Amino acid sequence: MGVFKTGYVQLRVTDLDAAVNYYGNVLGLVETGREDGKVYFKCWDEHDHHSIIIRQADGPGLDQFGFKTESPEDLAVFEKKLEAKGIKVSRTSAGEKLGQGEAISFEDRGGHRVEIYYKMQKVGNGLPLDNPDPYPPNLKGIAAPRLDHLLITSPNAAEDLEFYRDVFGFRLTEQVVDPTGAPIAVWMERSHTPHDLAIIPGKPGGFHHVAFYVENWTEIGRAADILAMNNVKIDAGPTRHGITRGHTIYFFDPFGNRNETFTGGYVPDIDNPPITWTLDKFWTGVFYWDRTEQGSFTEVYT
Amino acid sequence: MGVFKTGYVQLRVTDLDAAVNYYGNVLGLVETGREDGKVYFKCWDEHDHHSIIIRQADGPGLDQFGFKTESPEDLAVFEKKLEAKGIKVSRTSAGEKLGQGEAISFEDRGGHRVEIYYKMQKVGNGLPLDNPDPYPPNLKGIAAPRLDHLLITSPNAAEDLEFYRDVFGFRLTEQVVDPTGAPIAVWMERSHTPHDLAIIPGKPGGFHHVAFYVENWTEIGRAADILAMNNVKIDAGPTRHGITRGHTIYFFDPFGNRNETFTGGYVPDIDNPPITWTLDKFWTGVFYWDRTEQGSFTEVYT
Amino acid sequence: MGVFKTGYVQLRVTDLDAAVNYYGNVLGLVETGREDGKVYFKCWDEHDHHSIIIRQADGPGLDQFGFKTESPEDLAVFEKKLEAKGIKVSRTSAGEKLGQGEAISFEDRGGHRVEIYYKMQKVGNGLPLDNPDPYPPNLKGIAAPRLDHLLITSPNAAEDLEFYRDVFGFRLTEQVVDPTGAPIAVWMERSHTPHDLAIIPGKPGGFHHVAFYVENWTEIGRAADILAMNNVKIDAGPTRHGITRGHTIYFFDPFGNRNETFTGGYVPDIDNPPITWTLDKFWTGVFYWDRTEQGSFTEVYT
Amino acid sequence: MGVFKTGYVQLRVTDLDAAVNYYGNVLGLVETGREDGKVYFKCWDEHDHHSIIIRQADGPGLDQFGFKTESPEDLAVFEKKLEAKGIKVSRTSAGEKLGQGEAISFEDRGGHRVEIYYKMQKVGNGLPLDNPDPYPPNLKGIAAPRLDHLLITSPNAAEDLEFYRDVFGFRLTEQVVDPTGAPIAVWMERSHTPHDLAIIPGKPGGFHHVAFYVENWTEIGRAADILAMNNVKIDAGPTRHGITRGHTIYFFDPFGNRNETFTGGYVPDIDNPPITWTLDKFWTGVFYWDRTEQGSFTEVYT
Repeated sequence: MGVFKTGYVQLRVTDLDAAVNYYGNVLGLVETGREDGKVYFKCWDEHDHHSIIIRQADGPGLDQFGFKTESPEDLAVFEKKLEAKGIKVSRTSAGEKLGQGEAISFEDRGGHRVEIYYKMQKVGNGLPLDNPDPYPPNLKGIAAPRLDHLLITSPNAAEDLEFYRDVFGFRLTEQVVDPTGAPIAVWMERSHTPHDLAIIPGKPGGFHHVAFYVENWTEIGRAADILAMNNVKIDAGPTRHGITRGHTIYFFDPFGNRNETFTGGYVPDIDNPPITWTLDKFWTGVFYWDRTEQGSFTEVYT
Repeated sequence: MGVFKTGYVQLRVTDLDAAVNYYGNVLGLVETGREDGKVYFKCWDEHDHHSIIIRQADGPGLDQFGFKTESPEDLAVFEKKLEAKGIKVSRTSAGEKLGQGEAISFEDRGGHRVEIYYKMQKVGNGLPLDNPDPYPPNLKGIAAPRLDHLLITSPNAAEDLEFYRDVFGFRLTEQVVDPTGAPIAVWMERSHTPHDLAIIPGKPGGFHHVAFYVENWTEIGRAADILAMNNVKIDAGPTRHGITRGHTIYFFDPFGNRNETFTGGYVPDIDNPPITWTLDKFWTGVFYWDRTEQGSFTEVYT
Repeated sequence: MGVFKTGYVQLRVTDLDAAVNYYGNVLGLVETGREDGKVYFKCWDEHDHHSIIIRQADGPGLDQFGFKTESPEDLAVFEKKLEAKGIKVSRTSAGEKLGQGEAISFEDRGGHRVEIYYKMQKVGNGLPLDNPDPYPPNLKGIAAPRLDHLLITSPNAAEDLEFYRDVFGFRLTEQVVDPTGAPIAVWMERSHTPHDLAIIPGKPGGFHHVAFYVENWTEIGRAADILAMNNVKIDAGPTRHGITRGHTIYFFDPFGNRNETFTGGYVPDIDNPPITWTLDKFWTGVFYWDRTEQGSFTEVYT
Repeated sequence: MGVFKTGYVQLRVTDLDAAVNYYGNVLGLVETGREDGKVYFKCWDEHDHHSIIIRQADGPGLDQFGFKTESPEDLAVFEKKLEAKGIKVSRTSAGEKLGQGEAISFEDRGGHRVEIYYKMQKVGNGLPLDNPDPYPPNLKGIAAPRLDHLLITSPNAAEDLEFYRDVFGFRLTEQVVDPTGAPIAVWMERSHTPHDLAIIPGKPGGFHHVAFYVENWTEIGRAADILAMNNVKIDAGPTRHGITRGHTIYFFDPFGNRNETFTGGYVPDIDNPPITWTLDKFWTGVFYWDRTEQGSFTEVYT
């Protein structure tokens, strides 16, 4: 199968204590370790050691993200494919990173640092593997059960699509096209969801948001309450996307990294035809109900 | 990827007109064709020609079900694997079945007729591929967006698990084990859902239920209203499963075939550890809230 | 306005510690005081001192319940009306009961002890009266925001209806009638809800259940999870009533007193025509989805 | 009891056909009659002949609204009270208005035409009074079950509060106060809901919005879908109010009259203490999640 999920996202924050409070108590992630100025978190229903890493830095933004792949052999396969495209690949040994096995990493065409790994320590989801309840007691805050996807910016989404399709087998689910029909923003998946990774036009290496899955529209409303009670700045929503059909809130962590709670969306078969949005319907695609820009969608990246 | 979903289920019914009303107006499936005493349906958000076939017969029950596989080459691969296990494989030519390309079929260890196909006519989900609304107008009845899974009975689920794992790569998500730890009921997936196919102990070739996905617990409640307004017999629920965590209603079509509306459940990574239920917690696994048998779960199969 | 709500219900329990855990942690009521072998609770969004009193006794059951009335003058008015019907009325002085002002009490025609009071200590709902959040942090368990209604048994609901209508102005919202059209079960309200008090046929002084309001069907599902996680025996549901249209779970406190979580139902105008259920549709009225008896509805009272 | 609900609202529209489509098919009201350039509608779960009247006119805005009162005698009582305050009262005979009995009308202090009536033709809610289903088949559009409340503008909400309290017994549930503690916006009720009538500062006779009740937050989301699919301009939301705690969408009919779908909010006892919002928290009161102005709340009235 190769890559089967967006496994983790590493973000820069300017105050580790404030970040631990925000990611731990407001989003309700589970802290799993600290090392070298980084704090590791997982969503409660994930079994792997981490899906969010925050790193103390001078400003917000995306350090890198990782895809989990099925088998050890995949690393060499992807390494070869990447090098065939003239992309320099680095190796990380097992043990270099907390909870993670050996990995390769590279800079994608759009200027983002990407890591591929196949092994991560299993720390469990807080439930026994025998006769579990549907969720553990004492969940905190929004209590998102899992990382959903990542939206990044890049100067050329069409090339990025080709790259991610060729090398990792990502499937295009939705795209915004220019009047010639060329894709200028793309949504891609490897996990039977509307997107694991999406790319919109913008600066190289840019980060738009990381999204956390919540169970349904009711949880979106509850998330909004929790954000408000914690004075978190909501950027847009609760609302619905046309693209993916999902329900959403965009909001910012205390440092300016945009986060999303996301739910719904269809379950795409791997052979579903992709959906195309024309530029005149771009805002309907992004904010289905309002059909105009909400918040700072096109203005604020980190 | 090989098999990536349970694609269709063919059921026997004793009155085709009553069945068309039930599957079309109550469940709200979309009729896509009729041929040779069979009526073909799809769920509204499916793009393929059919996911439910009903066939006029003398009594209820399961005729066969089909898995969709990724590529034409898969057929020969699976044919070889099946024959290596001493299983007789038949070929169906493209055009023999409405809307479906060439396929192989065989009888599984538990006595069920199974078909593998890679091509089915794309009829669309009622929405344009450009700038679609999230759902089409004029949905009817329960309006389940897609087929979810199938639960069948077999004399030896442990052997079936081995078979489906070896041949098609199904992953075990949950199991009920006997005191020796041997699986006696199994839940397996290929689509990042808690199950595409499940097997419980029972007669060879037996059929327990076919499940239709609905969006959330609110839709489960709405489905119950629609069932009641149409005098459909509810077998159990609305309730929650321990196994899969999903919310459910079991009910019967007018001929005695058990149907389910199912929602929720986790999104399993392909490397999640399987969950085990011990026999003393069996009913907690099946009906998490009541923890006792509800309706005719263990009594009525077709 | 006179009587404007069912204000409190006093129940007998056989183990005060177990009861405090159940009513406090599972239902999530707020304890407001203890006195003389009684523990006082309120639902979180109620401002008055108590809505549930539990009393240590030899067996379960209903001690009494109270209606809150608008003004001090009402007590004398009701006293006169009751005495005109030959009913003996007792006076309780302010201070005799925790948090409660002066009151009258009497035994109704069906053998239930009923108290009428107009003053109760305001203890607040855990939120400031200036610029409140929509709910306080740290709610526990089911966290029902308010007491909803009471269902009692009596040998003659038709007479009871007349009594509660004449003396307190209760409005009939729904009734079950026998083939002659005489009411044999009645639902009555004073608070623009489908019912504050309902009476079904049964022994004098009998208690069927006390209901706690929850916000919606999603909260009903969450309540079922919490009940199951706490090994509380569910009697019936989650399901929907035909009568009142509300969604419900019936379950038992550890001593056998039936509780309900209730939501939904219409908002009746005071001049809405009452709804009538005929005996052949009785179970559709009680359990709209299943249309048959569920649990022990007609069998277990305390 | 006197006045027990905001019974109807009469709005001006500039195109009766477009209005019939909007109020009938998008909001899903039930048309009950036409007369003299007016079309009468009710919400589906209301039993009375009308709750919305639209009148062909040169521009949008509020003509008048009506309160329903309990008994014929109330008209004379209110007439006397109004005249004692120097307010001129008109009488309308039964039969002058479609479906409505005799009434009195007057202009309130804030310049709004208000009618008090006790009788309106009962046309039913589309369900039988015997053994009804919870809702009728074939509901259309948003299908709001009932009119909820009205928000108007006036130069002096403090005086209006005193007026509505003295004459009709409205209870203050929430208020915004200026730094001296004087109310500058008020929410008042007579129906055990957070508000039947609210007044914010603005021009005399001004109309801010009329609100339709929907069942829950899920229905708010569905309403937003329907608005978008029908190209209705959303002004703000889906979001939550701090004031009333309710969930809401503001949007405009095709002529510029603001409508709201509203749900939730607490069930206030008649003796609940009122809630006060200070000016610095005004936007938290109006839009709890964003805490800033959304849409045109303070800018657009009709």
